[in-house]
Order: sequence, then C-alpha cells, then structure tokens
Amino acid sequence: MRIEVISTGDEVLTGKIVNTNFSWISQKLEDFGLAVTWETTVGDDREDLLLAFRLAGERADAVIVNGGLGPTVDDLSQEIAARAAGVELELNEAWLAKMEDYFKRRSRVMPPNNRKQAMLPAGAEVLDNPVGTACGFAVTIGRARFMFTPGVPREMRRMLEDQIIPWLLARAGKQTAIFLKRFHSYGIGESHADALLHGVEALAPGGGVKLGFRAHYPQLETKLAVRGADMDEVRSKLLPVEAAVRQRLGNFILAEDDATLEGVVLSAMRAREATLAIVETFSSGQIAGRIAHLPGAETVLRRGVVARRREDICAAVGLDPDALNEGISKETAARVARAMLAQTGATHALAVLVDVDDGADRIEFAGTICLAIATARDTVVRRSRVVGGRDWVRLGAVEMGLDCLRRYLQGLPVDERIDFEKVEERPA
Amino acid sequence: MRIEVISTGDEVLTGKIVNTNFSWISQKLEDFGLAVTWETTVGDDREDLLLAFRLAGERADAVIVNGGLGPTVDDLSQEIAARAAGVELELNEAWLAKMEDYFKRRSRVMPPNNRKQAMLPAGAEVLDNPVGTACGFAVTIGRARFMFTPGVPREMRRMLEDQIIPWLLARAGKQTAIFLKRFHSYGIGESHADALLHGVEALAPGGGVKLGFRAHYPQLETKLAVRGADMDEVRSKLLPVEAAVRQRLGNFILAEDDATLEGVVLSAMRAREATLAIVETFSSGQIAGRIAHLPGAETVLRRGVVARRREDICAAVGLDPDALNEGISKETAARVARAMLAQTGATHALAVLVDVDDGADRIEFAGTICLAIATARDTVVRRSRVVGGRDWVRLGAVEMGLDCLRRYLQGLPVDERIDFEKVEERPA
Repeated sequence: MRIEVISTGDEVLTGKIVNTNFSWISQKLEDFGLAVTWETTVGDDREDLLLAFRLAGERADAVIVNGGLGPTVDDLSQEIAARAAGVELELNEAWLAKMEDYFKRRSRVMPPNNRKQAMLPAGAEVLDNPVGTACGFAVTIGRARFMFTPGVPREMRRMLEDQIIPWLLARAGKQTAIFLKRFHSYGIGESHADALLHGVEALAPGGGVKLGFRAHYPQLETKLAVRGADMDEVRSKLLPVEAAVRQRLGNFILAEDDATLEGVVLSAMRAREATLAIVETFSSGQIAGRIAHLPGAETVLRRGVVARRREDICAAVGLDPDALNEGISKETAARVARAMLAQTGATHALAVLVDVDDGADRIEFAGTICLAIATARDTVVRRSRVVGGRDWVRLGAVEMGLDCLRRYLQGLPVDERIDFEKVEERPA
Repeated sequence: MRIEVISTGDEVLTGKIVNTNFSWISQKLEDFGLAVTWETTVGDDREDLLLAFRLAGERADAVIVNGGLGPTVDDLSQEIAARAAGVELELNEAWLAKMEDYFKRRSRVMPPNNRKQAMLPAGAEVLDNPVGTACGFAVTIGRARFMFTPGVPREMRRMLEDQIIPWLLARAGKQTAIFLKRFHSYGIGESHADALLHGVEALAPGGGVKLGFRAHYPQLETKLAVRGADMDEVRSKLLPVEAAVRQRLGNFILAEDDATLEGVVLSAMRAREATLAIVETFSSGQIAGRIAHLPGAETVLRRGVVARRREDICAAVGLDPDALNEGISKETAARVARAMLAQTGATHALAVLVDVDDGADRIEFAGTICLAIATARDTVVRRSRVVGGRDWVRLGAVEMGLDCLRRYLQGLPVDERIDFEKVEERPA
C-alpha cells in the first residue's frame, strides 16, 4: 500500500514552524509496519493545494493531509478537498451540534466563523475529534482515500492513533487493535540493545510484535509495537515479549511509557519521605534543574549547589579549602556528599564532580565523572570517563547522576558498566 | 520566480530525523524576499526521486535539492539528476583532486567509494563545498535550474548563503551582496517591536533592507536582511537602519548577531574581574545552568544555590530560618542577595525568588518574581508578575534574572516594564 502525507500551511512552508507533525506521523506509521513513501508541503494556496491533492490522488492508495481545518479564511482543506473530489460542500448538522455543545459546556457562545468547520465535502466520512472543534474527514480523490487531520498536534495524534492507523492496517489486511509499549534506558547503545533483544519478537504467540528503537542521547527508547484482533489479544502477545525485554535490559531500564527518570527518582524519594541535596560542578545546575520544578519537589529537594572551582565546592559544603586539592576521585566525591549531607540535614546527598579535558572540542575530548550518594546508612561511589565533546560530557554527567540515584533508591548496583564510557587503564 | 525544495533521504522520510534543513532553507530565503512555494520529501528510491525531479522541473524556475550526495550506495542524487537531465555521469577531475588533497591534509588515504562524490552529470556547474567532500552542483531539468546541496547542515548552510541565495537574487533581478544583521531582545513582544520599528526600512538609502522577526519566548530576534551591489553598499544601507533599531529598542537589546545573553553577562563580569553567586528557587538551577558551563565561567561563578522552601533558602544563604516568613517581596529578595554576597565573598549576588500559583496550569496561571542584585556598593530590586503556565513562568524568571544582571552591569535600569508582565494593582 502506497501512503503519502500532505502537510499544509504557510507557517510550515515558510519554515516558521518545523514540521514535527510529519516526522511524528511517519514514525508512528513505521512503528506499525506502514511506510510513508512521499511527503508534500504546500502553503495556504488554492491552486497548489488542488494540484497537490490531484497528484497524490493519482499516485497513492491512502493520503493523510495535515492542517487547514480551522475556522479562518486561510484554512482551505475542506473547500479544496470538495473541488478535487468533484463534489459540493455540505453542512454536517451533527458536527455543528457537537461544536455548539462544545462551546456551551465552556459557557461560551460559538463564534459564527466556526460554522465553517462543519462544512464537509458531500459524502465525506467524519473522523471524530474528541479534543477539538476541527472535524476530521475522509473522502476519495482519484484512486486514493484521503484522510484530513487537524494541524494541532494533540488533535492530530489522537485521530491518527484512534482512527487512521487502524483503518490503514485493516486496508493493508493487518490486524487492527494496536498498542505501543515503551521502555526508557540509560547506558546501553542502540546496536547493543538490538543484540541483547535479538529474537524477542518471536516470543509473541502468533507474531504481531515489532521491535524498534529511538536514540536520543543519553537515553534510548525501546519500542514494542503490537497488533492484534482486539486488545485482549494485544495484551497476550505483549506479555511474554515485555517480560523478556525487562529481563534482558534489566537494571538499565529507568522508566516505562510516559514516566521519566526524574519522575521515578522523585516518586521513590517521596514514597520514603526522603529529602535530597545535590552538589554539581560542570553539569552546572542541570541535575537540580531536572527535578526542582516538578510538582512535589519542594518537599524533597532541600538544596542544590553548583560550583566550578575546587575551593568553591569546598566552601559551599563546609569542607576545609584544601579538601579537594588532590583532584577528583571516588574518595573526594564521597567526602563532598557526606559534607553536604551533614550541612543540609537531607536524608540523601548526591555529589557529581567532573573534570573535563582542557582545550576545544575534538573527537577524543573526554571528561571524568566521580559521583557519590551519601545517606546516614552508607555512601556509594562511581567513577567513569565519558568520551565526546563538552556538551556530551555534560549530558552524560546529568544522566549518570540521576540514574545512579535511581539505582540506589531501587537497591541496584550504581557502578554497572555503560556503553558510553571509556575503559580506563588505571581506574582510581 | 517559483522556487521549490526537494528533501531526500530515508531518515527524513521515515521521520527518524526532523526536517530542520528545510525550515532553515525556507526561513533564509524568506529573509531575502524569496519564497518557497512547494516542498517534496522522498526517500532513497530511484523511481520516486526521478518523478520528484521531473515534476518539480515542470513547475518551478529553481529547485533546491537537499541530501543524497554522500559516498554510499543509497546516495542517489547525482545518478538521478543525470537521468532526469538526459545526460551521462562524468568524473570531475578537479573535484577528485580536491578530495584527495582534503584527505591528504588530514594524513588519511581517500577511501575508494568517495570517488563517487566526484561523478557529476555532464555539463553540471560545480557549487563549491569548502567544508566537506560532497560536491554541490547545478543542472537544468525541464524548465528549472536545480541546485544540489549536501545533507550535512553545516555544509548545506554555507553553500546556500555563499552561492545559492546570491544566484537566486541575481536570477530574480535583485542585488546580490547580502547580509543579515540580528538583534536579540527580552521584554518586547513581536507586535510591539513591529510598531516601534515602523518605517526603519525606509531609512536605507535606495532601499534594500527588509525587517523581520523570529519570536522564541522569552527572547525576540529582530532581523535586518540587507541586499546591495557589493558589501560596501550593504554596509552603507545598513548603517542608518541599525542605528535606528538600537535607538528604538534601546535597553531591551541584550545581544547582537551570534552573541548570547549569558555570554554578554559573563564577558561583562570577566572584564571587571567580578565574581558571581546566584540563589534561585522555582527556576531550579537554570540560571546557573546558562552560565556555569561556559568557558571562563569557572573564574566568575563562585556558587549557585537552588532551594524551593523558604526555610531551605534561608539555610542555604545563612539567614535566620524565619527571615522569609512574611513571603517574597523586593525586601526579602534583597535580604537573600545580601546574605549570599556575605556568605560567598563574591562581588555580585543575584537572588531570584518565585512564588507560583497553586494548582494545575490554566490560562491565567501566574507567578510572582522578586529579584535582587547585591554588591558591596548597592542593592537593586525588581518585582514582576508573569502570566502563563508553569514552564512560562520558569522561563521568564530565568530570562529576567539574567537580563537584570546584564542591565545592572551595563548601568541600565533593572525595573523597566516588559510586555510579558501583568500590571499589579497593589505593587509591593
């Protein structure tokens, strides 16, 4: 099946906004074994829209059109869809009533120009939009079925997941109940994860599970896209595969689905009524910055401190000015964490010290990270040398600091080797 | 003149990478009064590439193709360009010699498959690539001139600015020496800036200056795109206009061209051998995070502190635990900044305290920002109520903190009213 996407709107065409809707649509289709073969971007221009619709209607089996369903005069999708399909625009009474109700429930009167959003090409099939006033619809133009979606990302995504992907799967002769399971990990590279998970797809009874990855350093997202006849079948297919993924990626999985590393850390701290103090250097406040603003963080984060020079770190945590003169190591990180614990009265202190190479970025530019987590009970430490540019080292220090805290709170080892570190000849 | 863009490559088509090259090209052309009317994305597929080239060659006057010039088998742009133009591929000896020299200067032997990058359609005009091995070129397909550019952003941008835009301007009958002057400001909204700058374009002798904006909250970028016969003319056209922009946006301009707010603050601090301590709350370390990692920041930033609860802020700066019980105000911000100054021995202390509304994000969600800058000489304060969601308030607090420090260091008032704040009935 040949699928095309048409992105519409002057904002996208002029580059004022980056076309993330398209990449989202295309990725989502890929997840479920469907491929986009062609994408066209045109502005809010009648002739170009008409030509784009006609050309896609000659080439494709299915076309997803994004944007142009709003209430203003430059929203032209319904009008041009009707022209391309050779039909008139008709008022859809059901959608009009739905919109009026939508406004009434918000104690507002519907502005007259919203009526335009209920004008659809005659014979169009409505694609419901449960989260907005733009009515999605499907019509046939040329040899292709066209599905029109709103430009608002939240509305488009819902419509794609709930209605369009199942329709495309059915049309492609595939099972139509779908589910996307996601695991987030830190410390395993994409090719390593791919090797570790070799063969997991085959564990699904009768198949229907597709494994995929999305790397956004420092984290890796592992995706299981599942198709079945209904959600019960989807669940039974997913069960053995997700268990295998959890077992094979093991301690490296930091969160699942919509959860985040910082959210997991914060929840674990709140569950034990723990409090946190953080000392950071080259990561420059970004560890605290991942946590401090989250709802509920005010009861957990007692203090975050940033300093760059050794004497400033000592002063900030109340250590003797010469305490770090020997350089950074597991021992000095532990000393700083314990001093921070004593000074703030928090139950947990995290110290992440970084020494970066001198000079400009280059391929072999590296940084040494020494971190420690101290509590009244014990102190755990980790040392790692991360290769990459300055930004790479900084991102790595932030992620490693948070992930070691997650591991500590979950009773896992904090010093498991990761793929992004350089094995040192003389570990300190 | 009708200009189209063709983006090529499976990575873009499948959404693995977001097509920022296209938005960059389109914005850059807009800056100089050129408009893209159609964009097509196709994968590394011979038939689709050929069709895309032929269709664009029928419609457009100029086509910019991005990607597919690499050394690997899935890089097909030269091959399909030759087919579409009805010519053979020929080895370009000059480019081959250039590539061999490129590798030799890096003490490496050119891999054999790089030779492919010197195979161009017969009669093609070379577009030089001073920063890579992919050879740009121009050929005529149908009625359009096609310009082929590398997918690597840095190489594409250089080629577009140095060669393609001047060519397009000449073809459009416009002057071809170009320059883009940029001003960064904080505190003035786009429509306000547009009103303030009304008529500045007319100050350029003989015209040729185009005013534009790009809003990325909290900052606004004001752009002057200048065209002239040569760079001397460009400079003489720009001079009166940039002077007017500086005068009208005045204190709100925080940096120009590639400079940044944090870079300007750091330079000003270093120039006077000053040192800095920062206390922040809801901004959660992001003020320190903008500065602490910059080269040279280690000599300036003495300490950054984050805390959320009032008693934790007091503890962190050595104030009596009840010192903030009355809530946040200009006075309490000043007290915190002075305590931080005393505790760290820095020459400058910045305190940014934020109180956010309770509950979830909503349209009228707001936060109160009270900030102070203390030195041995004096203490300046500012209070502001910023409307927007939690993220909006946080971004505003970071920017306002840094910008007030910039203003203080430049001898400007720190409490000039900005467009993003709500006028309070009972200012503290």
